[in-house]
Amino acid sequence: MNDRFKKFLDVQQPESPCLLLDLDIVRLNYESFAESLPDTQVFYAVKANPAPEVLNLLYELGSSFDCASMGEIELVLATGAGPDRISFGNTIKKKRDIERAFQLGICLFAVDCDAEVEKVAQVAAGSKIFCRVLCDGTGSSWPLSNKFGCDSVMAVDVLEYAHTLGLQVEGVSFHVGSQQADPGAWDHALAIAASVFRTLAQRGIQLKMINLGGGFPACRLHHVPDKETYGRAIFSSLRTHFGNCIPETIIEPGRGMVADAGLIKAEVVLISKKTKLDTRRWVYLDIGKFGGLAETMSESIRYPIRTPRDNCEKAPVVLAGPTCDSVDVLYEKTPFMLPVSLQIGDEVLIEATGAYTMTYASNHFNGIPPLAYFVI
Amino acid sequence: MNDRFKKFLDVQQPESPCLLLDLDIVRLNYESFAESLPDTQVFYAVKANPAPEVLNLLYELGSSFDCASMGEIELVLATGAGPDRISFGNTIKKKRDIERAFQLGICLFAVDCDAEVEKVAQVAAGSKIFCRVLCDGTGSSWPLSNKFGCDSVMAVDVLEYAHTLGLQVEGVSFHVGSQQADPGAWDHALAIAASVFRTLAQRGIQLKMINLGGGFPACRLHHVPDKETYGRAIFSSLRTHFGNCIPETIIEPGRGMVADAGLIKAEVVLISKKTKLDTRRWVYLDIGKFGGLAETMSESIRYPIRTPRDNCEKAPVVLAGPTCDSVDVLYEKTPFMLPVSLQIGDEVLIEATGAYTMTYASNHFNGIPPLAYFVI
Repeated sequence: MNDRFKKFLDVQQPESPCLLLDLDIVRLNYESFAESLPDTQVFYAVKANPAPEVLNLLYELGSSFDCASMGEIELVLATGAGPDRISFGNTIKKKRDIERAFQLGICLFAVDCDAEVEKVAQVAAGSKIFCRVLCDGTGSSWPLSNKFGCDSVMAVDVLEYAHTLGLQVEGVSFHVGSQQADPGAWDHALAIAASVFRTLAQRGIQLKMINLGGGFPACRLHHVPDKETYGRAIFSSLRTHFGNCIPETIIEPGRGMVADAGLIKAEVVLISKKTKLDTRRWVYLDIGKFGGLAETMSESIRYPIRTPRDNCEKAPVVLAGPTCDSVDVLYEKTPFMLPVSLQIGDEVLIEATGAYTMTYASNHFNGIPPLAYFVI
Repeated sequence: MNDRFKKFLDVQQPESPCLLLDLDIVRLNYESFAESLPDTQVFYAVKANPAPEVLNLLYELGSSFDCASMGEIELVLATGAGPDRISFGNTIKKKRDIERAFQLGICLFAVDCDAEVEKVAQVAAGSKIFCRVLCDGTGSSWPLSNKFGCDSVMAVDVLEYAHTLGLQVEGVSFHVGSQQADPGAWDHALAIAASVFRTLAQRGIQLKMINLGGGFPACRLHHVPDKETYGRAIFSSLRTHFGNCIPETIIEPGRGMVADAGLIKAEVVLISKKTKLDTRRWVYLDIGKFGGLAETMSESIRYPIRTPRDNCEKAPVVLAGPTCDSVDVLYEKTPFMLPVSLQIGDEVLIEATGAYTMTYASNHFNGIPPLAYFVI
């Protein structure tokens, strides 16, 4: 834990649970992306953390923004950013939302099928589009389903169709899976992208842009390579598959930008056993799946947790949240190691929680308010 | 769909997505519980739907309330209900919340271990407590984990300990699992409860109450027996295990009270395929796991969905929500049958959605506001 978090907690003693966000870490992460991928434009994935303070900082640093909805677009415009800094990156959009976005000046849209192309052509004539292609998420903590994207054969047709409808056909996007620990994961996707570029070139359509997506990991969640290593691996793959004609590139980091900037202060509410002979403790915190830690579903994201007794012996526990809901259990299949001396009332600090916590929290489920946050 | 829903939708044409709540159905459900279990006090599980209009109605009908947190307690007190109508039924409570509740006049608390008994004894001296015992959830759509409760041997000790600390030891509670389709499921739990009563009687402590929990199903989700059948089965089991000394009983229905009273209006945003040869359609709605349909996790709760084209041939689809999140898929392992003629822009009506939707919705994830609702 850095000194700024420590000082804030000591001086302010905020009510538990709450999230602290250190904007200096967001700034360092942005600068690190910009340096590691110097020819790549950063579109911050707003969904990871839409706090106005985060958006304002990234706007000042020169970032662009990947938005999932009109709600996110309005948040970004409120920073003062122009619509040219916004990509409406959701492949699933209501036609009336595309129209509203276009009226606000936004003219970059994601698609993955003919039907979405038609919507854009009808209400946002002449806009730029990119087509998302499927790629598997091997190496990722959170491989994506097939929900977004189409295969590369279909992508060629979708882009050609968009071209015939008068849209500006920019290129392709993909996503290698969240919390991607393998910098080489982009290589396979770039090979697919290059094949789409070649096939369309044969049909007389020149693509010029690749959206490399997100997937950049939070460093504190696992030992992962640094951003420079990712940048080198991606540039090397671009060289391999595109030779001297490297296209424009953009990235959409979310977790990689903000996860490490967050620290959740929580409290041990109860420690108990289920039978008299039970060797396993249940530890209940005042935050759980419905309060901001929804990413523990399937137990794939394992947050580092600090307690005031970490120099004591540790033993496995089932870690659970405070709600009257049986699914509100954080770690059970793979138990979590916590000090045997842990006490009810102890403060615990959950690290790397700046991404997918505030907005993953429920809307007052069990009468518990959404996660409070403080910017330091 | 009843005529009142239809008329509201026709006349008001509310923006999609939204939830309609029919208070007449809540009233009928309450009356049905009261008639089917005539000697049992109803404690509505507020977490299922805390809309003030629902709470006000149930207060007027004479219901008591099972609350999970101080937030829910404040909502119930706002109806005008006295603290004697409230059970603080969460086994995981901060000591300062027990103290606040006690100061407000609440003196009925759930426990499942010595540590929780100690908290209650320290800050709510002389209160009534009941101990939750574990029972398996066979027959339930949503079997509960071991998160709440302890085994019956430990429950005896916990209750005896509470007695020695000066608390009023009321009895035991259990939960047979949510959306429980087997009215006989209460029998095994009541046998366990009876053994706890007997053992404590031998130690000179007379228990007097059984909290039969929730688990009563929403009728529209499956073909399930009616509430009268549940009432008869439970009364028969009480006779079997308690003979002529049947204890006081309470129930905590949540889903069974409000699920059928809710109807979500949603819209088809996109229909697509992933490859040119794909036979399976993906259908994307403007509501998903983060907008209120979180109970589709593990696909255990399958909502009935109506479309304007239900007289057409149907075919399997993957059904997904609108967010840029790959886990926001409602039904994929077991595909959902929808009309082959379904179109982008079609209105769909999702039935039996009055429980665990409004508050299971996220706090603006992807920039999407929490689910709007209308009481009719």
